[in-house]
Amino acid sequence: MSPNHSGYTSRDGFQWTKETGLRDGVPSLGVIRPSSNLTSTTRHDLFDVVVIGGGYAGLTAIRDLTLAGHKVLLIEARDRIGGRSWSANIQGYPYEMGGTWIHWNQPFIWRELFRYGLSSKIDISPVKEGGLSKCLVNMEGTRTVKMSHDKEDDISESAIKKFVNVDGRLARTVIPFPHDPHYNREAVAHYDKMSLADRFVEVADEMTPLERSMFEAFLSITCGSRTWEEASFFEFLRWWALMNYNYTDFIALGLTYKFKCGQSGFARHFFDEALETGNLTYVFDSPVSNVVDREGTVKVTTTARGNCGVSATFQGYRVICTVPLNVLYKVDFSPPLPQPKMEASKLGHVNQVTKVHAEVANPELRSVGAFSWPTGKLTYGFGDGTTPAGNTHMVAFGGAHPGVHLQPEENMDETLAAWRDLLAGHKVDIRRVVFHNWHKDEFALGAWEWLRPNMSTKYLDPLRARHGNVLFGSADWAMGWRGFIDGAIEDGGRVAKEASTEIRMARRGNATTSDGKFVVSERSRI
Amino acid sequence: MSPNHSGYTSRDGFQWTKETGLRDGVPSLGVIRPSSNLTSTTRHDLFDVVVIGGGYAGLTAIRDLTLAGHKVLLIEARDRIGGRSWSANIQGYPYEMGGTWIHWNQPFIWRELFRYGLSSKIDISPVKEGGLSKCLVNMEGTRTVKMSHDKEDDISESAIKKFVNVDGRLARTVIPFPHDPHYNREAVAHYDKMSLADRFVEVADEMTPLERSMFEAFLSITCGSRTWEEASFFEFLRWWALMNYNYTDFIALGLTYKFKCGQSGFARHFFDEALETGNLTYVFDSPVSNVVDREGTVKVTTTARGNCGVSATFQGYRVICTVPLNVLYKVDFSPPLPQPKMEASKLGHVNQVTKVHAEVANPELRSVGAFSWPTGKLTYGFGDGTTPAGNTHMVAFGGAHPGVHLQPEENMDETLAAWRDLLAGHKVDIRRVVFHNWHKDEFALGAWEWLRPNMSTKYLDPLRARHGNVLFGSADWAMGWRGFIDGAIEDGGRVAKEASTEIRMARRGNATTSDGKFVVSERSRI
Repeated sequence: MSPNHSGYTSRDGFQWTKETGLRDGVPSLGVIRPSSNLTSTTRHDLFDVVVIGGGYAGLTAIRDLTLAGHKVLLIEARDRIGGRSWSANIQGYPYEMGGTWIHWNQPFIWRELFRYGLSSKIDISPVKEGGLSKCLVNMEGTRTVKMSHDKEDDISESAIKKFVNVDGRLARTVIPFPHDPHYNREAVAHYDKMSLADRFVEVADEMTPLERSMFEAFLSITCGSRTWEEASFFEFLRWWALMNYNYTDFIALGLTYKFKCGQSGFARHFFDEALETGNLTYVFDSPVSNVVDREGTVKVTTTARGNCGVSATFQGYRVICTVPLNVLYKVDFSPPLPQPKMEASKLGHVNQVTKVHAEVANPELRSVGAFSWPTGKLTYGFGDGTTPAGNTHMVAFGGAHPGVHLQPEENMDETLAAWRDLLAGHKVDIRRVVFHNWHKDEFALGAWEWLRPNMSTKYLDPLRARHGNVLFGSADWAMGWRGFIDGAIEDGGRVAKEASTEIRMARRGNATTSDGKFVVSERSRI
Repeated sequence: MSPNHSGYTSRDGFQWTKETGLRDGVPSLGVIRPSSNLTSTTRHDLFDVVVIGGGYAGLTAIRDLTLAGHKVLLIEARDRIGGRSWSANIQGYPYEMGGTWIHWNQPFIWRELFRYGLSSKIDISPVKEGGLSKCLVNMEGTRTVKMSHDKEDDISESAIKKFVNVDGRLARTVIPFPHDPHYNREAVAHYDKMSLADRFVEVADEMTPLERSMFEAFLSITCGSRTWEEASFFEFLRWWALMNYNYTDFIALGLTYKFKCGQSGFARHFFDEALETGNLTYVFDSPVSNVVDREGTVKVTTTARGNCGVSATFQGYRVICTVPLNVLYKVDFSPPLPQPKMEASKLGHVNQVTKVHAEVANPELRSVGAFSWPTGKLTYGFGDGTTPAGNTHMVAFGGAHPGVHLQPEENMDETLAAWRDLLAGHKVDIRRVVFHNWHKDEFALGAWEWLRPNMSTKYLDPLRARHGNVLFGSADWAMGWRGFIDGAIEDGGRVAKEASTEIRMARRGNATTSDGKFVVSERSRI
């Protein structure tokens, strides 16, 4: 595939232009053709590992396992890799449909990016120079404040510090080790009990109306919850600690740097490297309906989706399940999943944020940021790039609070109006709109993970635990950048190493793993 | 080996106690016994890859290559792994003889640390609470200033910002991407031309005497150069960018977190994992004298060191050479190394810093930091831990400027006096001293890399380049954390991937690598 190839068209995502109106599906480098490399022989193979899900956790697992010489089957429900992080690649230009931003302080993603020679292939999203160079704040839907980006930073920094500073040390004592988030168990339990609403009560008298309004707008699309009550305050402290406990890095790490090739261009490196080993079998368009772990092997049954999928039962010595938290309970496991795993999945995380891209024929908007709270259906947005046509690419997020939760494909007039509202009357010429509705996505049922109060404390360990020969890897229960791409790579690598070690040791007749925790079934034929 | 095992005794390093006096060698988890697993058969094998050097670059390479199924020979000149990063493990307690500190913002090391389950096995070096909690500054050898750690931080932050702020943006415009250090080529060339002395001229009028004194002390042991003239200013900007462009993170990333098991405990994970694959042959105590690349295979000849080493010629399809910059020119290559590589190696980097540990029966010193400049032979030190005996472990560094360059083993009275001088008359009861003299170490000839003016600009690319079937991997020419453990893992991984890909492709009859740059010799028997 040439560098300018935009890939095949995925069923996922939506695109609107004035000329075509709204259409299902967008081109992406993440679409794999042919959709399977199964043969009549491999269909009945006993694989070393069956990996369910081709997001970054699954991609890391298949890459690590195939490089180590294991025979691997990847099963994916969609027609593309990447899970909740993928790009529409339109005319060679990426629109990030989900997970987007990366940084050299994110260890797992940076190691991979470097390994694939991409460390200088990076673009910058928001810029402060050129064009209007303003921040527009639409307050209460009634009046717009225009300010410089420096003032925007001052207000935002002041607000965020007030929100996190629970210990006079900007939360450093609560989470001294961001990659060991529960290190200070007592403090964590306290702040995990608290909702965002509880924290707002504590700082209500300290914030100015402008600080409060801008911070609420930002926070609403950070957690994507329907109410402040349903989202844990600890999750915000955890983000803050990961972002180096300062506002400058919160912006630098959270929403600044991205791939020139788009996330799907990056994800292809993992898939292609695994495929190149000759050890990867894969099947797309084939959601998993059930997983049966019996007598040392695991059987995984799929149901075809569309014409390309496969309805079949596959088997492996180990299964790595990367199905996201909010849909895990829908897969039928035998023996059934332990109660805490099921409970956590059914409760689910709360993030139902909306993300919408617009290509606008307004070069002056490249350096604009905008807030609209609490009435804006797009709550926070900014210039994200310049398209090959020379137009400005803007990205905006919408919160899920009642009355504002935008479903962009349901009414394009409303979606276009939300853009105009966010840009506070600035005359905008919208040429294209691109998005993925994660709220309605049956394989995700939400965006990046943001847990409810008490869930981190109660469910992190059970979610990371294996279940017999089934291992669970996902950004949703990573230790470090939980809820981020980095966390997916971390956790996919963790379970791949565990499975690989077991299989290697079993083949040597060694009945226990290195940590002595797991005994390979005597009936295993590994 | 049990967790409390302190390992076998290495020939490297020195230890002094009142009772024993000065002795050569210290126990370390990094010493490998038996010193070779060669057999009469494997001695004549044609290996896939011969890796020269068992520091982190070499360890990463052998681990990655053996996991991918390649047959690998590791040749190491010393009796231990770790290269310039290793710990004396004394009574179960680590004294770091070289590279020490780690952080979750160092991507390559953090990925490995997590992979080996060590993310919660971390200790903290300097602490501010408990005991004296003071910073002692010995100025001009004539008077001592005592100050709080808060004041120390204020002065140090003010000084370092004045030193780096060449663009009003704290050098962000010079190095916007710390892992792509030459991104802004024009600015980099300008600041790489400058020496530290040149920069001091520019800021001379801006620093107070106290700022200048404390910063010079700190800088002298950061670069380890004999003069300010011989060290590049760009190298300091590069460190600053890697440390997130702020003083708080400079301390957090540069000298705060370390392994409970010591670097040698960490390094063992790499070695043990490689060994466990069954694909690793190794030989210690066997310095390489020459490397001959001819007709598609490379022959590597060693000279035995002591009784355990091996004098022999080994061969592989590829060689990964991790010999450090300052000694690379001593290995005889045929065909000879290209001129720029030889030139860079002969020029060498300038870091000849001294590092000395002391175990002191003074609990109050745990929270003390100290500077002594310009007369102190130990220039900067601080409490580094608490030993099993309940004593304070302190670490100090000495600069290499004329008149202060301490060779600790030459005169122990002088070394003990240097400690007393650094602690500015505080009554100290020294029970043990531990160190490695990197300046005289024939396999390193220096500590971590700090280049001369113009060397980064001129030699980074040539140093990274391959030479026929020989690939070069080292922290000394890494892209990101160059001169750090993280850089060693980065660069060892890079060349391992390159070698692995070529061998795999050659075995499939594919004559070029994925980037089309290298044609496998037709005479290769891979």
